[in-house]
Amino acid sequence: MSSTRDIDALIELMAKLPGLGPRSARRAVLHLIRKRALLLTPLSDLMQTVAATARECLNCGNVGTADICDICTSEKRANGELCVVEDVADLWAMERSGVFKGRYHVLGGTLSALDAIGPQELRIPRLVDRIDTEGVTEVILALNATIDGQTTAHYIADQLEDRVRLTSLAQGVPIGGELDYLDDGTITAAMQARKSL
Amino acid sequence: MSSTRDIDALIELMAKLPGLGPRSARRAVLHLIRKRALLLTPLSDLMQTVAATARECLNCGNVGTADICDICTSEKRANGELCVVEDVADLWAMERSGVFKGRYHVLGGTLSALDAIGPQELRIPRLVDRIDTEGVTEVILALNATIDGQTTAHYIADQLEDRVRLTSLAQGVPIGGELDYLDDGTITAAMQARKSL
Ligand SMILES: [Zn+2]
Ligand SMILES: [Zn+2]
Repeated sequence: MSSTRDIDALIELMAKLPGLGPRSARRAVLHLIRKRALLLTPLSDLMQTVAATARECLNCGNVGTADICDICTSEKRANGELCVVEDVADLWAMERSGVFKGRYHVLGGTLSALDAIGPQELRIPRLVDRIDTEGVTEVILALNATIDGQTTAHYIADQLEDRVRLTSLAQGVPIGGELDYLDDGTITAAMQARKSL
Repeated sequence: MSSTRDIDALIELMAKLPGLGPRSARRAVLHLIRKRALLLTPLSDLMQTVAATARECLNCGNVGTADICDICTSEKRANGELCVVEDVADLWAMERSGVFKGRYHVLGGTLSALDAIGPQELRIPRLVDRIDTEGVTEVILALNATIDGQTTAHYIADQLEDRVRLTSLAQGVPIGGELDYLDDGTITAAMQARKSL
C-alpha cells in the first residue's frame, strides 16, 4: 500500500538518529502524529530553519548560525585560555557548567590509526595557528579519558610544549558519585591525586 | 546570545520525544546538523508531509493518510476476523508478523478507573457497531498481558458474548509483556494457537 509510505519513510529516517532504534522510532513517530500541532509541525519548521542556518564556526568548530561563533567573536572570552574538546557536545557541557570563561577549540574527534584520522582531520593545524593569533597562554586539554582521547592529548601536548602552559582536567570522584559505581581507573586516579583536608 | 536560539529550541523539542532525554536530544541535533543534506532536510520535509497528511482511520483508529485506512477499505481483509489491539504500535507489530489476514480495531488505550478512561474513550461503542456492519464472526482480543489490558479484554468480552466467537492470543505472550516488544515468531505462534474464551 502506498499511502503510508511517507510515515514508513519518516520512521526509517528517525531510526537513524543516535539513541533511537526502529522500535523507538515507531513510538516517536506515533507520538509526533498524535501531537501534530504541538510537536510535529513546530519540529519540522525548526529543522528547516536549522538546516538553513546552522554552521560550524570556521575558527573553533563550535556549531552556531554565523561563520564565526559567538564565543570566538566575544572579546570577553579572549582571556588567553583555550579549552580543547573532542566535540561540540563536550563544549556545550562545559558551557552549561559555567566554570570556563575562555574560548574553545573543537577537534571533531580523536586521532585514530584504525579509522585513518590524522591531525589534519582534527583541526590541529588550526589549533597551533590560534596560539599566536589569539595570544593564547594556557591550553586546557579537556579530552575524554579514553585511550584515543589521551593519545590525542599527548600528541597535542607535543606540538605545543614550550609555547603555552598545558593543563588537563583533574581526574577524581564525581560530585555525588558513589565509589561502588566507579571503575578502577577512576578510583586509582582519585587516590593518587588525593589532597590533605 | 540569540543566534543559537533555534538550535536550543530544536533540542528542547526533540527532548520531548519518547525515548529521548535532554542529553540524547543534544546528540541527535548535532548528528542532524552534521548530516544536514542526508538527514536533517529530508526529515524536516517528511515531517511536514506527514503533518499535512497523517490521520486516524475513522473506522478502526489505525494511522494512515486517508479517512478510512487501507486495511479497512481492502475487501481481502474482510474475512470476518477482527483483531482488537490497544494502540497503533501493536497493530503495526501484528502486521509485521504477517500472520493475521483480517481487520483491526485500535482501542487507543485500556480502561482505567484511575485515569478516568471509560468505554467511550476507547472506541468500544464503535467496536460493537462494527460486529454487525462488517459481518464480524470472530473477535481476537490481542491486548497486552497487563492488569489493565486484561480488565479491558474482560469488559469487551462481556459486551460481545453470544454475538461472536471471542478468542485471545495464546500463551506465548509473556506475563507483563507488551506486543510491540515481541519478535515476529512469538506473535505468529501466539496467533496460530489462539483459543476460545
Ligand atoms: Zn568559534
Ligand atoms: Zn481502518
